[in-house]
Formats: sequence, C-alpha cells, structure tokens
Amino acid sequence: MPLTYTPPIRDMQFVLHEWLGATAKLKELPRYADFDQDTFNAVLEEAGKFAAEVIAPTNSVGDTQGCQLDRSSHSVKTPDGFKEAYAQYVEAGWPALACEPEYGGQGLPFVVNQCLYEMLNSANQAWTMYPGLSHGAYEALLAHGSSELKQRYLPQLTSGQWTGTMCLTEPHCGTDLGLLRSKAEPQADGCYRITGNKIFISAGEHDMAENIVHLVLARLPDAPAGSKGISLFVVSKFQLTADGSLGERNPIFCTGLEHKMGIHGNATAQLTLDGAIGHLVGEPHKGLAAMFVMMNAARLGVGNQSLGLTEIAYQNALAYAKERLQMRSLSGPKAPDQPADPIIVHPDVRHQLLTAKAYAEGGRMLGSYCGLLLDQAHHSTDDAQRQTAHAQLALLTPVVKAFLTDNGLTATIGCQQVFGGHGYIHETGMEQLVRDARINLIYEGTNAVQALDLLGRKVMGDQGKALTAFGKQIAAWGAQHSQEPKLIEFLLPLQSIGERLTEVTQALGAKAQRNPDEIGAAAVDYLRVVGHLTFGWLWAQAANIAIKAIADGKTDPIYPAKLETAKFYFSRLQPEVETAFKRLQSSANVVMKTTHALA
Amino acid sequence: MPLTYTPPIRDMQFVLHEWLGATAKLKELPRYADFDQDTFNAVLEEAGKFAAEVIAPTNSVGDTQGCQLDRSSHSVKTPDGFKEAYAQYVEAGWPALACEPEYGGQGLPFVVNQCLYEMLNSANQAWTMYPGLSHGAYEALLAHGSSELKQRYLPQLTSGQWTGTMCLTEPHCGTDLGLLRSKAEPQADGCYRITGNKIFISAGEHDMAENIVHLVLARLPDAPAGSKGISLFVVSKFQLTADGSLGERNPIFCTGLEHKMGIHGNATAQLTLDGAIGHLVGEPHKGLAAMFVMMNAARLGVGNQSLGLTEIAYQNALAYAKERLQMRSLSGPKAPDQPADPIIVHPDVRHQLLTAKAYAEGGRMLGSYCGLLLDQAHHSTDDAQRQTAHAQLALLTPVVKAFLTDNGLTATIGCQQVFGGHGYIHETGMEQLVRDARINLIYEGTNAVQALDLLGRKVMGDQGKALTAFGKQIAAWGAQHSQEPKLIEFLLPLQSIGERLTEVTQALGAKAQRNPDEIGAAAVDYLRVVGHLTFGWLWAQAANIAIKAIADGKTDPIYPAKLETAKFYFSRLQPEVETAFKRLQSSANVVMKTTHALA
Repeated sequence: MPLTYTPPIRDMQFVLHEWLGATAKLKELPRYADFDQDTFNAVLEEAGKFAAEVIAPTNSVGDTQGCQLDRSSHSVKTPDGFKEAYAQYVEAGWPALACEPEYGGQGLPFVVNQCLYEMLNSANQAWTMYPGLSHGAYEALLAHGSSELKQRYLPQLTSGQWTGTMCLTEPHCGTDLGLLRSKAEPQADGCYRITGNKIFISAGEHDMAENIVHLVLARLPDAPAGSKGISLFVVSKFQLTADGSLGERNPIFCTGLEHKMGIHGNATAQLTLDGAIGHLVGEPHKGLAAMFVMMNAARLGVGNQSLGLTEIAYQNALAYAKERLQMRSLSGPKAPDQPADPIIVHPDVRHQLLTAKAYAEGGRMLGSYCGLLLDQAHHSTDDAQRQTAHAQLALLTPVVKAFLTDNGLTATIGCQQVFGGHGYIHETGMEQLVRDARINLIYEGTNAVQALDLLGRKVMGDQGKALTAFGKQIAAWGAQHSQEPKLIEFLLPLQSIGERLTEVTQALGAKAQRNPDEIGAAAVDYLRVVGHLTFGWLWAQAANIAIKAIADGKTDPIYPAKLETAKFYFSRLQPEVETAFKRLQSSANVVMKTTHALA
Repeated sequence: MPLTYTPPIRDMQFVLHEWLGATAKLKELPRYADFDQDTFNAVLEEAGKFAAEVIAPTNSVGDTQGCQLDRSSHSVKTPDGFKEAYAQYVEAGWPALACEPEYGGQGLPFVVNQCLYEMLNSANQAWTMYPGLSHGAYEALLAHGSSELKQRYLPQLTSGQWTGTMCLTEPHCGTDLGLLRSKAEPQADGCYRITGNKIFISAGEHDMAENIVHLVLARLPDAPAGSKGISLFVVSKFQLTADGSLGERNPIFCTGLEHKMGIHGNATAQLTLDGAIGHLVGEPHKGLAAMFVMMNAARLGVGNQSLGLTEIAYQNALAYAKERLQMRSLSGPKAPDQPADPIIVHPDVRHQLLTAKAYAEGGRMLGSYCGLLLDQAHHSTDDAQRQTAHAQLALLTPVVKAFLTDNGLTATIGCQQVFGGHGYIHETGMEQLVRDARINLIYEGTNAVQALDLLGRKVMGDQGKALTAFGKQIAAWGAQHSQEPKLIEFLLPLQSIGERLTEVTQALGAKAQRNPDEIGAAAVDYLRVVGHLTFGWLWAQAANIAIKAIADGKTDPIYPAKLETAKFYFSRLQPEVETAFKRLQSSANVVMKTTHALA
C-alpha cells in the first residue's frame, strides 16, 4: 500500500485567502496589480493535480531504485519515471511559474510558487530537488549575472530545458566555505578554467535534461585567504557555442554518488572539475555574498520540504488510524460491532496526529507569510514596506528553515509510530518520510547554524531591532483582540512568551559580552522559543478567524477543526518553551567547562 | 571509515563496583556466594574484546547486505560473517553465560549478562537479536515448560547450538494479542498441530544454527475469545526424534522477509504454520501470562539495545568532533595553527555529545540497577527482598524500555548531526545507528504502550504503592545527603520533581475517575517525568561518588568527568520535565474533543 496524497487545497485557501489576504496584498504591488484570486485557485488546483497524479507515483520507486552512476561515461540514470515526470513538468510550463517574463517566465508571485513546491515536496522530495536547485541557479544568475550570461542561461532554466545546481561543498569544507580550495585560472578570452573537487552536489548529474548549469564557488589566483577570497562561476555541463546551442562536453564530471539515508531519488554527486570552463558571476571575491541570495531562498525551500513531508505523513497516519483495529478505548468500546476499536480512539495516537496537523498547518501559515514577504521585498514600490519585508524575512528565514525541519522530523517520526511495526516496514512508505525528512535538518546550513544566524546575527547583530519590531506587531495584534473572551486562552501564553523572550534576550546580550560562547550555547533553544512565539501568533489568528466564522453561522467544518487544533497546539506543543526557557537559564559553562567529560 | 568501538569497561566498573556495589549484593544471594569482582572484571574484558573484535566488523556489512530468502527452500541466508561470528560466539560459550548449570549453563548473574549484551548491541544490534531471542525462548521454557520439554530443548538453547524465537504478532494483531487467530488442534499423541500466519518474527529463519525453537501463541479449539484464550506452544523447526536428535522438517516455513528501515541483518520473518507439530508450554489458555515472562525480560533487553547504540554513537561523534576542522570558536581561535578549529569547540556540538554521554551513562546505571533487581527477584532467600525487587522491577521495566529507547533515538540523531552532511551518508555508519535505534521505540510494546503500562497498571493499578516506595527510597537518599553543600544543586531539582510528581499523580487519579482517557492522554509525559526522576537520582549519586573521590585526592579523570556530566544532565536534559508537567496540566479533551480536526 503506497502513500496516498490529497492536495490540501482547502487549507491553502484558508491560509492564503481567509487569513493572509494574499491576493489583496499582492495587488498592492504594481507587478501583480492584475493578479486575482481565481487565478490563484486555478493554479493551486492544477498544481495539486500534477503533484498527486504525476509526481507522487514516482516516490517509492525512487527510494527503492536510487540513482545509478555509469563510471565509464560519468552519466547518471535516475529512477524509473523521473525523466518522464520531468518532461511532463516542463511540458506543462511549471518551471516558468514564478520566473521573469523577460526570459519566458509567467511572472507569478513567489507565494504561489511556494504552494506548488509544498505539494511537489509532499509527492516526492527527492524528485522536487531537481527543479528546486534549478530555481536556485536561476535566482543567482538573475541577481548577479551579466546581461550576456542571463541571455545565455535564463531562458533555458526558465523553461526547464536545462537544470541547475549549487556547487559549494568540498570534502574538507561544508559550513566553513572559507576553507574551499577549488581554483579558477583566468584565460586569455575572459573565461576561467576551474579545477577542484565538489561533494554533496544535489541534482549534480542526471538524465532528465540535456544540460546542467552549475554555479560553482572557487578561488581566483589573487584571492585573499578565507571567505573573502571566493568567487562565483557558472559552469555549463556542455559548453555553449556562439549561438547558445550546446557544444563540447565541459570537463565537470560526476565521479561518485553518495549512498544516503534518504532522498535516494536525488543524485547527490561528487563532481570533479578538471579545467572546466566557467564564467565569472558578479564581482571577483564576492562569490559568497552572491551565493547567499540563493541560500536564503533555499533555506525557505528546505522549510517547505519539511512542510510537504509533514502534510503527507499526517494524511496517511490519519487514514491508517481510522482503519487499523487494535485494543479498546480506555473509556469503553467505540466500535462494539468490530473485534476492536480503530486506534484513533487512543489518546496518544490522537496526540501524534494532532502534532503533525498543527505543525503542518502552522508551517503553511508561516511559509506563506514569508513567501508574501519575499514578493513584497522584491516588488514593493514603497521603500518602507520593502525594507520592513527584507528585515522581517532575514529574521524569519532561519526560523522557517530550522523550526519547520525540526517539527517535520518530530511529525514524521510520530506518524510512523502510529503505524506501529508496520511503520518500520518499507512498503507502507512511512519510514521513507522519516529518512527523507532527516536531511532537512542538515543541509543548507545545519539547524545549529540557523540558530546561530538567528541569535548571533539577526538578533544580537542588529541590537534586537528586527525582533523587537516583530514582537510589537504581535503585541499590537494581541492588544487589538484583548477584549474577546474566547481568545484569552491563546493571548495569555503568547504574551507570556513575548515577555520572557525579551528578558532572555537582554540577559543573553549581557552574558555574551563576558563570554561569546553564551550565544552558541543558547542559540538552539532560543530559536525554538522564537518559533513558538511565531506559531503562537499564527495559531491565535487562525483561532480568531474560526471563532468569528462559527459565530457568523458558517458551517464549513474547517472552522471547528482550526479551533480544536489551536487549543491542542497551545496545550501540547507550545509548552516546549518551558524546557527551553529553563535551559536558557543555565550558563554556557555546563557545555563548555566539560574538558574531562569530553576528553 | 567504519564505526569504531571501545568497550566502556572503566565506566561499567564505575557503575557496577563503585556505585552499585554489585558484587557484594550478589554475594548476599546464596547462588552467587562465591562470585567475585575479579571474575566480573575478567568477563567484562573478554566480552568487550569479543564484541569489538568479532561482532563489530559484521555491523555495516549486515546493514548493506541484509538477509536473503530463497523461496523455493524457505531458507534464509544471513549477511556475510554472521554465521562465522555466531560459531565463534557458541564456541566461546557466551550463550551459556547466565543459564542454569543444570542445562549446561555457567550460572552467572543476569547483571553480568546484561553487560555482555550492551557491548554486543553496540557492536551490532541486528546480529545480537539472534542470541537475544534465544535467551527469551530459554526463559519461557525454563519458567513454564514441563521437565520433559526442558530436557529436550534447554541444553541446546544454552549451548547456542539451537536458537529461539517468540512468535506473537499476526498481520491483524500486534499490540492486541487477544485478536490472534492461529489454531492449535490437539492430536491423539498429546501434541498439537498448529496452523496460522505470523509476521514480524525476529530471527525467525536463518542459517546460523541447525535448529530453531519457536515459541508460538495459538488458540485451542475450546479457547474463550480474546486474550484469555491464548496458549503457548513450542514448535521446533525440525521435529525431535525420541533420542532428541533432529528429525523431519516441521511445516513452519518462512514465506517472506520484511524490508525494514534498519536492523537489516536480522531476518524479520513471515512464518506460515501449516499443521506444524507443537507441544503445549504451561497450561491451556494461559499462554499470554507465560509469554509475559519473556516480554518483561525482552523489554529490559530493548532498553539495553538503545543503551548500546547510544554508547557507540557517542564514541564516534566524539572522535569526529575532535578531528573535523570547521569554523572558529566564538570565543577566539582554539587551534590557531590549523586552518579552522575542531568542531568540538562549538557549544551545540558539545551539547549533542554530552546528551549522548549523559544518556548512555545514566542508562547504564539504570540497566545495571534493574539487572541486579532481577537477580535478587529470582534468587534472594529473603522474601521481603524478593518481593521488593519484583515490585520495583515491575515499576521500572516500562521506564527502561521507553525512556532508554526515546533517549537512544534522540542521542543517535544528535550524534549523526555532529557529522553534518557526512552523517547522512551510509559510509560513516551514523545513519545506520539512527535507523536501527528507531525500531526500539516500536517493538516489544510501543513506547505509548509502555507508558500506559506504567501509569495505568503499575501506578494507578496498585494505588501508587510501588511508586511511593521508590520515591521514598530517593527521598531517603536525599535526606541522608542534605548537608553536603556540593550536592545541593542536584538535590533541589530532584526533590522538586518528586513533589510535583506526587501532586500530578494524585490529580490524575481524580481526573481519571471522571474520564479514563485522562490516563492515556497523560501517560507518555508521565513516563518521561518518572524517567527523569530516576535519572536525577542516579546522576546525583554519581556526582556524590565523584565529589568524594576528588576530595580524597583520587586523580582518575572519570571523577571530574562524572561531575561535569551530572551538571550538564541537570541543567540541560532534566528540564524536559518542565514541558511535561505543563502538558500534564492540560485536560484529555485537548486530544479527545477533536472530532472535527481529526475527521
């Protein structure tokens, strides 16, 4: 029995239309002045259909088969069906959805593209990484490429005719890109010959497209040491001729594929560059900054991957829990005509299901919120709005990446547990979700790196300004609703977290002046608290909409469902902050002054 | 680079000799009057050597190859090296270590056997399940078999010449054994013909021993419905002739092997019984009770599996963290002559390592404590001691199973995270530890079932007597040490947990009278609190020993290491109870009154 998947269109509409008011906010941006809700809904419907019908059937086979490298030709065969699914994806025009019309894109908002990707990730994360990486390469070239490079690469990345990669990691350097060794030698004709070894290159080699556009970090001969001496290059698998068609094979070869815990369908390549011809993207030695444009988008994308996995894990665990008969309810038989009750009667099974549901729906709110911020940051004509959007996005990006992926691992493990022994068996598909979800806490900067980014750079680095502004936004919303008795149960814990977070932030600022390791020792717990402050605000808003809708006599069961899930979230998930706050009281010494323990 | 493993002999000695005083307590039991510490140490040394040198090299290959079923002969080939390692295991006499001398056993204490098994589990959990299941079958026959059955089966199970299984689960029943359908038809000669389908039978078929002794649950024709109509049978893969030698093949055939997330080296078999000849073990319809003897021991064994995995994950993550250079310490370069600092300088890396260390060493204390209780429960000549040991063991068994396996998953995931992207790659071996650790939360009763057993049966079911007695033991120890200023930081949180646990237990008792689902809704958090009460007591005792040793001028670095780890445990791990207590305040309604949310 393979996993089933129903696109969560109704919930997306709740989030986008009833809560976020995305269409109205997009229409304020001149670029999207003509965008309307019907278009939005039509795209959601079609994207959901595509994900469920075309992509989902490739998921289990992709996990079982994995990718195969032919070492003699350096070619990689993707699992059965991947290539055909990709052809349909290109044919339907999905790669172009949020790309610039100038290069053949449809110019739809980022927040729409994000909904597409959530559903693709539910259907098959490993497959979705191929177009996902292309989008990263597209963004980097769009932001930093010369107009010649854009003309040569963007139309084909937009159409999906070519795919892209990000080549950062080397065997001795992952987080610490300042250590990288790949070299770029300038040539007389203005191009560069690049030599080096890259590892962990997702979608690094495959048979789904005729060309691959690699964005490669390397050092110029005169580069300063460390991270200030890194430049960004575009290296095409096949060199382009003068008319832009594919010419000679460029010596960037796949020399190995990793055997991984999960995402087997994606080719995680070792790439050897042996004097491969590349072109400089952006300025010399400014490659890391250029790459960060991609990495911020990629971090939102990784959060979205775990959102997709959380949703499909939830759907399948819910269906199984209604169907599997085992034991009787503690409060008396609920299905007396059956040999046993369905396991959904058991409180802990419900707890696991509600955890996944609250994390999926909360994650969808947060992801959409950030998606809209990205549209505003790019396209608002109001300087203040653009700056605010940028600042809040910078603050929330590590939260989306780490909080949603932590939650995704918790949720997929919990949903697997609902299946009992059957969850440990490959055939039910649940164990694959856990294995796939696991990578999301690691790549694009481990979750500990995200936490340092949040606390060290985004909070301490700007004296708490962005966080304070976000906190004020939440407090203002709370004040606005403080007279509504049915909301009190949500407003009080939210206010309490906000106040305690302010205290902790001040205390950490003071402690960190004496010992900078206090930041590293606190960061992971701190991020979880900020995540729950954010989710608390989101779930309080969802509850508010539900309360009003019920009072207005609306009968859609989504409203009582939202209210129940909000109550669950505040009672059962947000209390995680109690542990985090307690841990945040401890000194860094409890981890640092442990030289005998970690001898 | 495969995993490395160094048997933690020094820590075992700390636990067994310096803390538990195991030898002296064993000597109080007439059976072990001649046992001495030198013997104990010699066994630890030899067992560690065997685990590290013979078993550990089979771990990765076992995961990669898995087991292969030949459907025509119903035979299973285990991974390369498994059979040879088992032959050496038998040759060295390890299966007989804690078995009865009457059947060829060496008659050593259970607590010694447990140390052997911890190290085997570190080396290869999947392999260790073969002899582990044999021991379960041995225990059930020893406790419930007729003297004829014992004579026919126990010598070969003791020597390891034959292995054993526990055949409980069927496709439609796992937790709910009352639903099982396998049938046993009495035959004229006093034996039974058994027909049915069993699934998830660990070590169910293999090529490592000449015969397999299956202990099978089935129903007699006159059996009452439900769990009171289940009988236990012994079904030998090969029927035994009158002289006890192997005769005809019995029709109990492996008809499938599961594809699992982990423990690939163990054959998880589907077994079809087609009129297989079996003999009744114990009384008709009392099979479940007989099986529970095995299951309680097996639950301690599962906790021990996760202890083994936690230890080896810790060792390898620690080594990697000292070696891998990446980024600089936040408080300034620590290895200025290197291109970057070893990642052990980063607080979150240390947090992950210390988590695994505290959970491993705490788990070792708890496991050894329960191992000794088991010896006392079986062999004490003092009725009161025997009863106390039984009662405390009953209380702590679900804690060992669930708390240690939860911790094991947390620790293996955290240690995998230390490896960054390399942890996601098969070759480092870390991802296998996570996949293997995952099953331990599921089999032998899911952790939610353990939690219900603890709160529903072991606490509420005896009006809190066993828990109160345990709490008094902890409080008495605290009172005894209340004047020692260096212990105050450990005694206060311990006392606080004890008091809050008492309150919560009383509140739950009252709530459960109105709504029995309150027990199910609270059980998982409740078990985590009891686990931390227990670990808090254990770590406070370890700290106390360390403080005294340091004051006495002992220079073994284990003492400051214990003190540092205790401080870490209390500051960073025990605070988990804050979340649990907060959640325990919520009503069962937040999970049960969610009919729209889980529609």
